[in-house]
Amino acid sequence: MLSINVENNFDQIKHYCGLVGIYSDKLRNIPQDLFYTLFTLQHRGQEGAGIAYEKNGNITVYKDLGSVPAVLSKYLSLERLTHVGIGHVKYSTKGGNKIENVQPLYATCNKGHIAIAQNGTITNAAEIKKSLVEIGAIIQSTTDTELVLHLLSRTKKDTFVDTLKDVLRRIEGALTFVMMHDNELIASRDPHGFMPLWIGKKDGITVVASETCALDILQITDYREVMPGEIIRVTEKGVESTYIEQRKLSFCIFELVYFARPDSYVFGRSVYQMRKKMGMALAEADEADNIKGDLVMSVPDSGNYAAIGYALRSGLPFEYGLSRNHYVGRSFIMPSQAERELVVRMKLNPIREVVAGKVIIMVDDSLVRGTTSKIIVKMLREAGAKEIHLRLSSPEVKCPCYFGIDITSRKELISNRLDNKGIAEYIGADSVKFLPVEKLKECVDAGDNFCCGCFDGKYSVKIEGEN
Amino acid sequence: MLSINVENNFDQIKHYCGLVGIYSDKLRNIPQDLFYTLFTLQHRGQEGAGIAYEKNGNITVYKDLGSVPAVLSKYLSLERLTHVGIGHVKYSTKGGNKIENVQPLYATCNKGHIAIAQNGTITNAAEIKKSLVEIGAIIQSTTDTELVLHLLSRTKKDTFVDTLKDVLRRIEGALTFVMMHDNELIASRDPHGFMPLWIGKKDGITVVASETCALDILQITDYREVMPGEIIRVTEKGVESTYIEQRKLSFCIFELVYFARPDSYVFGRSVYQMRKKMGMALAEADEADNIKGDLVMSVPDSGNYAAIGYALRSGLPFEYGLSRNHYVGRSFIMPSQAERELVVRMKLNPIREVVAGKVIIMVDDSLVRGTTSKIIVKMLREAGAKEIHLRLSSPEVKCPCYFGIDITSRKELISNRLDNKGIAEYIGADSVKFLPVEKLKECVDAGDNFCCGCFDGKYSVKIEGEN
Amino acid sequence: MLSINVENNFDQIKHYCGLVGIYSDKLRNIPQDLFYTLFTLQHRGQEGAGIAYEKNGNITVYKDLGSVPAVLSKYLSLERLTHVGIGHVKYSTKGGNKIENVQPLYATCNKGHIAIAQNGTITNAAEIKKSLVEIGAIIQSTTDTELVLHLLSRTKKDTFVDTLKDVLRRIEGALTFVMMHDNELIASRDPHGFMPLWIGKKDGITVVASETCALDILQITDYREVMPGEIIRVTEKGVESTYIEQRKLSFCIFELVYFARPDSYVFGRSVYQMRKKMGMALAEADEADNIKGDLVMSVPDSGNYAAIGYALRSGLPFEYGLSRNHYVGRSFIMPSQAERELVVRMKLNPIREVVAGKVIIMVDDSLVRGTTSKIIVKMLREAGAKEIHLRLSSPEVKCPCYFGIDITSRKELISNRLDNKGIAEYIGADSVKFLPVEKLKECVDAGDNFCCGCFDGKYSVKIEGEN
Amino acid sequence: MLSINVENNFDQIKHYCGLVGIYSDKLRNIPQDLFYTLFTLQHRGQEGAGIAYEKNGNITVYKDLGSVPAVLSKYLSLERLTHVGIGHVKYSTKGGNKIENVQPLYATCNKGHIAIAQNGTITNAAEIKKSLVEIGAIIQSTTDTELVLHLLSRTKKDTFVDTLKDVLRRIEGALTFVMMHDNELIASRDPHGFMPLWIGKKDGITVVASETCALDILQITDYREVMPGEIIRVTEKGVESTYIEQRKLSFCIFELVYFARPDSYVFGRSVYQMRKKMGMALAEADEADNIKGDLVMSVPDSGNYAAIGYALRSGLPFEYGLSRNHYVGRSFIMPSQAERELVVRMKLNPIREVVAGKVIIMVDDSLVRGTTSKIIVKMLREAGAKEIHLRLSSPEVKCPCYFGIDITSRKELISNRLDNKGIAEYIGADSVKFLPVEKLKECVDAGDNFCCGCFDGKYSVKIEGEN
Repeated sequence: MLSINVENNFDQIKHYCGLVGIYSDKLRNIPQDLFYTLFTLQHRGQEGAGIAYEKNGNITVYKDLGSVPAVLSKYLSLERLTHVGIGHVKYSTKGGNKIENVQPLYATCNKGHIAIAQNGTITNAAEIKKSLVEIGAIIQSTTDTELVLHLLSRTKKDTFVDTLKDVLRRIEGALTFVMMHDNELIASRDPHGFMPLWIGKKDGITVVASETCALDILQITDYREVMPGEIIRVTEKGVESTYIEQRKLSFCIFELVYFARPDSYVFGRSVYQMRKKMGMALAEADEADNIKGDLVMSVPDSGNYAAIGYALRSGLPFEYGLSRNHYVGRSFIMPSQAERELVVRMKLNPIREVVAGKVIIMVDDSLVRGTTSKIIVKMLREAGAKEIHLRLSSPEVKCPCYFGIDITSRKELISNRLDNKGIAEYIGADSVKFLPVEKLKECVDAGDNFCCGCFDGKYSVKIEGEN
Repeated sequence: MLSINVENNFDQIKHYCGLVGIYSDKLRNIPQDLFYTLFTLQHRGQEGAGIAYEKNGNITVYKDLGSVPAVLSKYLSLERLTHVGIGHVKYSTKGGNKIENVQPLYATCNKGHIAIAQNGTITNAAEIKKSLVEIGAIIQSTTDTELVLHLLSRTKKDTFVDTLKDVLRRIEGALTFVMMHDNELIASRDPHGFMPLWIGKKDGITVVASETCALDILQITDYREVMPGEIIRVTEKGVESTYIEQRKLSFCIFELVYFARPDSYVFGRSVYQMRKKMGMALAEADEADNIKGDLVMSVPDSGNYAAIGYALRSGLPFEYGLSRNHYVGRSFIMPSQAERELVVRMKLNPIREVVAGKVIIMVDDSLVRGTTSKIIVKMLREAGAKEIHLRLSSPEVKCPCYFGIDITSRKELISNRLDNKGIAEYIGADSVKFLPVEKLKECVDAGDNFCCGCFDGKYSVKIEGEN
Repeated sequence: MLSINVENNFDQIKHYCGLVGIYSDKLRNIPQDLFYTLFTLQHRGQEGAGIAYEKNGNITVYKDLGSVPAVLSKYLSLERLTHVGIGHVKYSTKGGNKIENVQPLYATCNKGHIAIAQNGTITNAAEIKKSLVEIGAIIQSTTDTELVLHLLSRTKKDTFVDTLKDVLRRIEGALTFVMMHDNELIASRDPHGFMPLWIGKKDGITVVASETCALDILQITDYREVMPGEIIRVTEKGVESTYIEQRKLSFCIFELVYFARPDSYVFGRSVYQMRKKMGMALAEADEADNIKGDLVMSVPDSGNYAAIGYALRSGLPFEYGLSRNHYVGRSFIMPSQAERELVVRMKLNPIREVVAGKVIIMVDDSLVRGTTSKIIVKMLREAGAKEIHLRLSSPEVKCPCYFGIDITSRKELISNRLDNKGIAEYIGADSVKFLPVEKLKECVDAGDNFCCGCFDGKYSVKIEGEN
Repeated sequence: MLSINVENNFDQIKHYCGLVGIYSDKLRNIPQDLFYTLFTLQHRGQEGAGIAYEKNGNITVYKDLGSVPAVLSKYLSLERLTHVGIGHVKYSTKGGNKIENVQPLYATCNKGHIAIAQNGTITNAAEIKKSLVEIGAIIQSTTDTELVLHLLSRTKKDTFVDTLKDVLRRIEGALTFVMMHDNELIASRDPHGFMPLWIGKKDGITVVASETCALDILQITDYREVMPGEIIRVTEKGVESTYIEQRKLSFCIFELVYFARPDSYVFGRSVYQMRKKMGMALAEADEADNIKGDLVMSVPDSGNYAAIGYALRSGLPFEYGLSRNHYVGRSFIMPSQAERELVVRMKLNPIREVVAGKVIIMVDDSLVRGTTSKIIVKMLREAGAKEIHLRLSSPEVKCPCYFGIDITSRKELISNRLDNKGIAEYIGADSVKFLPVEKLKECVDAGDNFCCGCFDGKYSVKIEGEN
């Protein structure tokens, strides 16, 4: 029996991974801290979780396929006092869904003991792998990250940080890392800045994490974003920063559109505020086109914050048009033969009282295949909706991502097959409108610093077959 | 290690149970239907789940402690074709959290094979039990429901429905049932009407269920509410209704305040609409008192719909002031020594951008102990909120419920210890205001038909020590 | 996927159940004692296990389908100090393999709290059930034992023991019980003595158990057999014995042939010694027939002890002709489509060096369907055995058991279809010989006190359709 | 709670590992074959199990800590048709009990895809690891086996087999392997021949396995032992053999004493026959010393076959003096604070009828710490044994093993602390006698070809600090 998880939004772009690293001056139950912080980053990866921490001069790694609670909850009742640890939640990108690819990876080499976790995809991995294999390296996983371990081992500089710099210069793509090197914590953010990384301090502990919500759970308020190209080393002597050359800045705009938690800051911006502004821009466009609904609703929860913006700007009332079943997704697998429609109905149900007889502006973040939207529109119609206008707070998704996001194949992307009118017809909506890429950039004050490759096909890194 | 479930809102009134019964003219995979419908009623009870269905002339019962997916998901991949089945989700009321008390109960007796599931509490159970034991009955569980089985066996009337009527007349309190009697489906709604019960039909199947959302998942649109005192019998000959004498109508007002799903109808009313009206009434009261916030937000998800009403009536913008972690509660147990504050922080995190510097109207449904609210207020203050005005869409909870709701002891109820000003001080809010019981009744057009016992201590059934 | 357990000797008669009861003057971790003692009785029932013990004036019951370790091992790390407890291992007899039927059963009634566990089958259960149901009893399981609870509740005598006597007189068949009545331990052995029951004392604890091996694990050396019809009551005042009228003695001869552990005593006899004598009798018969093998081997482990006896009497060498895989049966399920032959091969493998070229006397305890024997004979032939003479230490099994043993249907019993020559042909042996019933009785000095119903169809209790 | 497995004979020398490799001309469900064959080798390692098989041109690896059924039973209901696969059962030797160290290991390198499983320990591993790390290798496990993968990758010869030969020449110690190289099966037996390895063919499948019992389960009768130093390569073209230089032959004599299954052949010898001869030699020694018992019994099951030999040679009757509980060890963990005595009693119980008043010759295979023997002797005394003479079918264990066996530290070995008289006193026996190493060699016709290092400290490989 093949099966699909009800929670799995088969119609949604998948997140990056999430990273945490913790260093404490005093002995501290760091595995437990890693649990709490990784749990706040669970939205960045639900398919695997793992931690590494220092124990008796060695590094203990514990990881498995599964959610943070499924894999790590045993640490809630254990006391493992230590000075340093790192953690990772994983959405399977290139590596496939195998235990070998769950992170952190660990190795002993001529640099000592290293544990490492990565966020993003190395674009010249194939070439690096080839050269490594030629000189005799054995590759035991299908993660990019293992290649980094090999490079670290084969590079000889005065210090570990210098070695790391050299390695980082050799790799291309998205390359944000947290590491343990013996009993030191090392973190490095991608010189393009594709992925976010933050550092905060409180009471002798230093924490690096992908989003600020992970710092919030530890009640850390003193934090800043790690700079693109910055390498951080935390030891008993404190925090040291050093840098490699910044490359073309390429903040992933999808973090602001959908990935990051609304209560987080990424790229110096409030995620919530950015999404609200996207919704406002959608409202402005409708105003220009003289489209007026009776109410605004969101597809929960991806469309929530843009819908709020739309309501504020348009003056239309915000209402809950769909009720969401909170119990969906809790260790619960549907047989694969179940129709998608039933799966959607288990998660969402229209609130007839809200939608019956109404002209509805329905806001979501993006449109991939359109399957779920089609079912939702059908349900809303059955509940009596008069008109349904779907508004997306991002542009048409048309191109692949080479840096760590899982987007379905080009031909499955509905915007590669149909224009807006065709999409509206396909999903049964009265109209469908996307936020143009220029408007989106305006909303987030993007300047030239963001990667919008999945929308416009422009990548800041040379990709074989693209560019 | 004792433990507390992060999901468990230790500060929330607990639901009743949920019931489903299905009869199909043709052979049909009813256990799977029961899975889907019970799953929509999961909010009515997460501590146990069970089904009974006809198999080869006998009744098969499958039940256990745990959620619907945990207990019943094996039925997703099985085909069990049958004509009739019933299902139950349970929040432990009187019976304690033991496997013996999970429903449906099953027995063979001189009336044949009976499976039964109950919603509500029998108020004269002690007296009935005493008389049964005196004449030699053996009691194998601590549920009220077992007593009903004994009474059915000991009562002799011409038909099973007549026997049931006789039994229903002997018991007092809240007594809504679904049953299988051999291969018939029987459902009876409480003559006070405490709990909701609906019946719908489609393509030869008849479904009874506690809320309409359970009918929605089967795409049944032809339904009506079962009447207080109505007994329904479904056989191959069709659906028959009969009645026992109605008693003083006593619809549980808490169904509208908090229990039922917002997309359901109960007591002939739209739950969503009622909650919106409660929020509007709160806004009117604030207008009268000349209190004006910068924005309205809810404590998710219990305050969502009243908050919408407040926003609509007051003209204030509705915003998400708290981000909710969707992964909370998925088979994940916190060690009991964890502080409550951490537990709340794992579930909710303020969105600083929304609340900083703002005068906030925060809407929730009710206030029990005040512990969670106190933590939320603290978090919002830390995030920079200027003023926090807590508004509750129900009156002060001051009295116990004798009909199936789990309310903490009188002395733990904050409204029995403090007045509104004292409460505001305790939780750190700038003001706290409840919706007066008369206003609440007005909102739901209650007339004299609702039980507000938990607010006003007036019960429609004689309770030893009360009244 | 249906499945069969490799351990399940689908070709073997199934055991009775096993009982333990413990009373301690001082507070003691009795659940742990129950674990150890039930574990020694695991061979008497592997399909369910349960215990009941006194806790704060009430009775706690913990039971489930599964082996003693699977169900009860959590008690190895708990301390539950108490004075009294009972335990049960179950092979599903009449009740079918459902959780409802796992014992001990528990009820509250006008006699107080009662927990009860039973060994054996009540032969007039149908009639008792009918009369109970007529007067209004509800029956929640399909065990005989629930009927006993009903009868206890409905019978009124001065003392509980008198009530029990009255009940025991009403029931027929095999009726050995251990009970808790509030904080007293009660045990009663069947007035026919079908099943064994022992009582031992040491250091202020009193233990009743089905076999002496359960007393051995607690290092109790002061013990005696409970008498047929004896009722034992253990309270803080000590042990009291009382009796109901003995009935026709009917010790189950299969306990000596196969059920009981070889290190146990039952019916005043050493199980090991009896089996050795059966083997000697087989040797004598072969000597009379002038059959001479090269060696004696057993089908492990059921034939081990008779094989030893055969070797001693015949002077032939005892050898291990089959190697047994110790890992078979450990929570390991074969798909049902696997051939039986593979299942047997996973458990047993011939030792070529022993059997090649040899005339083999192969001893087993009994022959049911002959399927396994047929496979073993085939394997031995492949390994080079020259001649194979199968000897069974019991007579032909031809009749059902009404007292608690699970024998396959009459028509599946090979001895009802074929004579010895036909059987030899069917299984591929050179000869097959059973121990005649008279010889078997002689070996165990049976007198007129044993039930050999499964061999000779003579039952000491009136059975509808037999006798 | 630390815990000890009841099955774990804490007083027993631990096995090597077990290996299987299968190649089939036609597509075949090889994972299922691996299950059955590994299950027959379960006695060679219970702490981890794994398989690798070819799938769509790649190699799939599935492995975990746990028994064969626990880890691999899912393959019983799957169909995975393929041409080649390898399997491994593991007793943790050097690598510690971590998932990273469970085999087969897998890597991609310049030789293609390789999966590998190993039996034995490399004695110059430290030196090899050092040189690998120096040139930049990263080491991700603590197994010796990973080093072999590195060496294979770094060695360049014309063919893979030539490369392997080169690698095998570089490593010292016990080095028997099964491998998949892309879709080829490779097996190589140690040039010392420490561990056994067999190859068999039937109907187009070729199987290599540690013991013949693994071939038996597949009903393969056409087999031979792989030669020391032989390398076997199986492809679609058939089986090819090639050799590296044989080294000093060093068959592990403990395979014959205890490790291998009695129904297996290893080193060209019948295990059963060898053990019987050891028992005969013990009997001869007692005859010379004029010691005469009433009966012979074994410590089950390690002493079974030598006991048979003793009985045959001495003419004394063989009897079962101890009953073994078959349910011990099935996923069942004792709390660590339980006394060892209780653990032994749960497994073994004397048969009073056999031992009371008797002079007993008790045969076991070897003596490590003596703890278990001491408890058994105590139990037999309590059961009335008159005299107990312990006979061991091997010499005094006094030295460590460097080739893959887990022997406790020198100082814990009882024979390093006490002479035979002292041992008898310590364990409470009337006498203790070992089989002298010369006699043992004679029994197995050892010539100069066996390693008896654990008895005599003579190793055929240079060991730092020994020799």
